[in-house]
Amino acid sequence: MKTIDLNCDLGESFGSFVMGNDELILPFVTSANIACGFHAGDPHVMDQTVALAKENNVAIGAHPGFQDIQGFGRRSMPLTPDEVYHLVLYQIGAMEAFCRAHDVPLHHVKPHGALYNMAAKDYTLAEAIAKAVKTFDSTLLLFGLAGSELIRAGKDLGLRTASEGFADRTYQPDGALTPRNHPNAVIHEVDKAVQQVIQMVEHGTVTAVNGDTVKLHVDTICLHGDNEHAILFAQQLHENLGKNKIEIVKVQRL
Amino acid sequence: MKTIDLNCDLGESFGSFVMGNDELILPFVTSANIACGFHAGDPHVMDQTVALAKENNVAIGAHPGFQDIQGFGRRSMPLTPDEVYHLVLYQIGAMEAFCRAHDVPLHHVKPHGALYNMAAKDYTLAEAIAKAVKTFDSTLLLFGLAGSELIRAGKDLGLRTASEGFADRTYQPDGALTPRNHPNAVIHEVDKAVQQVIQMVEHGTVTAVNGDTVKLHVDTICLHGDNEHAILFAQQLHENLGKNKIEIVKVQRL
Amino acid sequence: MKTIDLNCDLGESFGSFVMGNDELILPFVTSANIACGFHAGDPHVMDQTVALAKENNVAIGAHPGFQDIQGFGRRSMPLTPDEVYHLVLYQIGAMEAFCRAHDVPLHHVKPHGALYNMAAKDYTLAEAIAKAVKTFDSTLLLFGLAGSELIRAGKDLGLRTASEGFADRTYQPDGALTPRNHPNAVIHEVDKAVQQVIQMVEHGTVTAVNGDTVKLHVDTICLHGDNEHAILFAQQLHENLGKNKIEIVKVQRL
Amino acid sequence: MKTIDLNCDLGESFGSFVMGNDELILPFVTSANIACGFHAGDPHVMDQTVALAKENNVAIGAHPGFQDIQGFGRRSMPLTPDEVYHLVLYQIGAMEAFCRAHDVPLHHVKPHGALYNMAAKDYTLAEAIAKAVKTFDSTLLLFGLAGSELIRAGKDLGLRTASEGFADRTYQPDGALTPRNHPNAVIHEVDKAVQQVIQMVEHGTVTAVNGDTVKLHVDTICLHGDNEHAILFAQQLHENLGKNKIEIVKVQRL
Repeated sequence: MKTIDLNCDLGESFGSFVMGNDELILPFVTSANIACGFHAGDPHVMDQTVALAKENNVAIGAHPGFQDIQGFGRRSMPLTPDEVYHLVLYQIGAMEAFCRAHDVPLHHVKPHGALYNMAAKDYTLAEAIAKAVKTFDSTLLLFGLAGSELIRAGKDLGLRTASEGFADRTYQPDGALTPRNHPNAVIHEVDKAVQQVIQMVEHGTVTAVNGDTVKLHVDTICLHGDNEHAILFAQQLHENLGKNKIEIVKVQRL
Repeated sequence: MKTIDLNCDLGESFGSFVMGNDELILPFVTSANIACGFHAGDPHVMDQTVALAKENNVAIGAHPGFQDIQGFGRRSMPLTPDEVYHLVLYQIGAMEAFCRAHDVPLHHVKPHGALYNMAAKDYTLAEAIAKAVKTFDSTLLLFGLAGSELIRAGKDLGLRTASEGFADRTYQPDGALTPRNHPNAVIHEVDKAVQQVIQMVEHGTVTAVNGDTVKLHVDTICLHGDNEHAILFAQQLHENLGKNKIEIVKVQRL
Repeated sequence: MKTIDLNCDLGESFGSFVMGNDELILPFVTSANIACGFHAGDPHVMDQTVALAKENNVAIGAHPGFQDIQGFGRRSMPLTPDEVYHLVLYQIGAMEAFCRAHDVPLHHVKPHGALYNMAAKDYTLAEAIAKAVKTFDSTLLLFGLAGSELIRAGKDLGLRTASEGFADRTYQPDGALTPRNHPNAVIHEVDKAVQQVIQMVEHGTVTAVNGDTVKLHVDTICLHGDNEHAILFAQQLHENLGKNKIEIVKVQRL
Repeated sequence: MKTIDLNCDLGESFGSFVMGNDELILPFVTSANIACGFHAGDPHVMDQTVALAKENNVAIGAHPGFQDIQGFGRRSMPLTPDEVYHLVLYQIGAMEAFCRAHDVPLHHVKPHGALYNMAAKDYTLAEAIAKAVKTFDSTLLLFGLAGSELIRAGKDLGLRTASEGFADRTYQPDGALTPRNHPNAVIHEVDKAVQQVIQMVEHGTVTAVNGDTVKLHVDTICLHGDNEHAILFAQQLHENLGKNKIEIVKVQRL
């Protein structure tokens, strides 16, 4: 039986500012990427989110980002590889402290926003992230974009990796995501998005924007939790994965 | 032979802003309290400071403070005990990640500035800090003001504690520090400060401002590293402790 | 004909974090207190909010707070009067720049959250705020709690002031607000809240929790804009003020 | 008689973090670019620095930067032109409030660090900055790199501009600064640096790294104030400008 992991970014509230619907999306995912207080989240939110993820039996991941609450970690910042290594190491450590508090293991690390995108293309940066993960705990899983430099750097350093695919984004013939500013970057039809996931899992391929069938190994699918539509999509994806005898299970770490 | 630990706050630089003379004071201390990025320090500075402390064979402590770089953690903030627990837990976790990177154990936790002062008097707050330490690692040492609520809360939760005395501050008949705004709060004469330390270590007492001899058990003395005078004082203290056959050694953790 | 001003805190979104329903509440108020980027808001949000207030012909006020996005300016911070003066002066200047951009006058200043509450009771702090307002532009209106030290300090410095009353908060026999942690601090019944406003405007009194009728001069009523209930209350208040021949108009500045 | 303005970045301390030697360099400059609290400085430091500049009869400029204290505004951030416009407008407004407090006019605006460098090459960004200056006060001077897009955008919008030259940086045959990572980017010999300034002022040219004589109109020279060497250089420059009958005077604003 084929399996797939479903992951979601969580714990993105900050002080009085509420973001997302963590309680609503948690029942539909197997892995949670929890913000570490640099681009979103704060110590109190982290504690609550780890507790909530544990209750839902969801694997807990650190979701480190650039130190930029105002820009939500979506603005690229020109850090040196050393600075990125320290940035990520710090955030993993902070997150793991809350895992200790709730007696639940830290499972994976997935960089956020601009850091994720930069690490997809820049091997040196990717290596700095992977090195931080390995330094902290070499048995942690590293989540990255399928086919990215981050996955390559993780493997090169001997880490177990999870390749991430997107349900609602289109792909280029080379397996890259269509940049967001392109008119056809986003898949709005639920059926098409569900179908893309099923094709990824069953055949290890994706149909690119030009019609090409492209190889793409995917271990986990990124869901969103920030609007009602997202919850409905998650429900529909669950139903269809069930119909196709695809089991939803978390990726196994070492 | 009597022993005493000498500790100092370190790693207080932030980005381009340089604070303190860490390299100069490190040879004179046995314990370093390293800022965790909330009131001072940043991930890069933390990494460098842990490396420097390790080189000098100095015990590494997390030095958590309020999230207030501008106020250097010296401004009291009305957090709930829960928020303080999360605040401290986060910072210990972040610091420990850099200890892992340099393969050196985290040794102790000493709260900073307003958090330290508030925890000296407020048992509930002190308990929240002690709980964070215990949750993270129950074998860590908790540093607090000698005779404070923080030491009491630490002991109540079963933590090993280190009681801190001050060389350059005067004491009240009840064993409390003379508040800084009092005219005779600070001891400016080096000889007198050295003598106070020797009395603390040899007799477990301090002479209060009114001349009373007050019981005060002290495990560690707080040194400053932020000016030339501080370095000279550290040298003189070393010499005089040597003459008095008092050994300078780090406090043993569990 | 009696008149009253209705004011509301606006522009409290921050980067990607959305707060409040500014478009919905604006039609019901005559004065907007716009966050200045220290406890909420950012330069982009300030610009948009000034534009929106202007469109709705609503008087624009600077709403300075402590520099604490995470705590939303609700945590008291021990600043010196000098620091408060600088804090407020800075934020008024920043806000006025956006008024220039939209060719609309800055109308008033109302401190936010903990700063507002502290200035209600501490004359020295209140004076520092009033001094900042006067220094920037002595014709600006100063908004403060009716009967507070802030109103007193503003008058002492020769500023025109606007005394603020609350529709949904109960009052003590001495004219102070019942502290929020008291069980009967908040008025939940819409009718009662509307009635309290009408009594304030028509009779210049409020009925305290013990039944006493207390003198309370009020120029402006604080509305909330952060939930659906608030919008409904604003509608109902408008209707009832109309029925009672009370005109809703902004307070005149010099 | 030829004239030149000497400017320096000032007010870069932040809370307890001290940066620069403002008192020492101020006697040698005619224009001060004062940090506005986004990349350095804070409301208290701004007030003190404006007072100090006024005492020294030095023209006061706003020195807006990216919101990045940790990176000291030296890290480029991908803001939209609209966001840059709001960023700069906000900071000019804040600075002008302190000018009001000290009854001294705001004289100019000079962007800082990464914002300055980006505006030198990107016309759209430069235009956003110039638009913020013009919106706030169309009689303010705009400082920018000689030959940059910022100077061009300022002129295009009808602003008076001041072209900045560097004493201690080498130039390329096209008039651009040699990038800092090049081995010969910085001029270390004091005589050579002084000579470069005198050539700029007397002949409106600079000798490029390849020996070419390049036209370069310069209104102001950037001095540094962050180390002892800088103060000595300022002294020497003053003496040599005197010997060459070049008067040091501030650039006239409208």
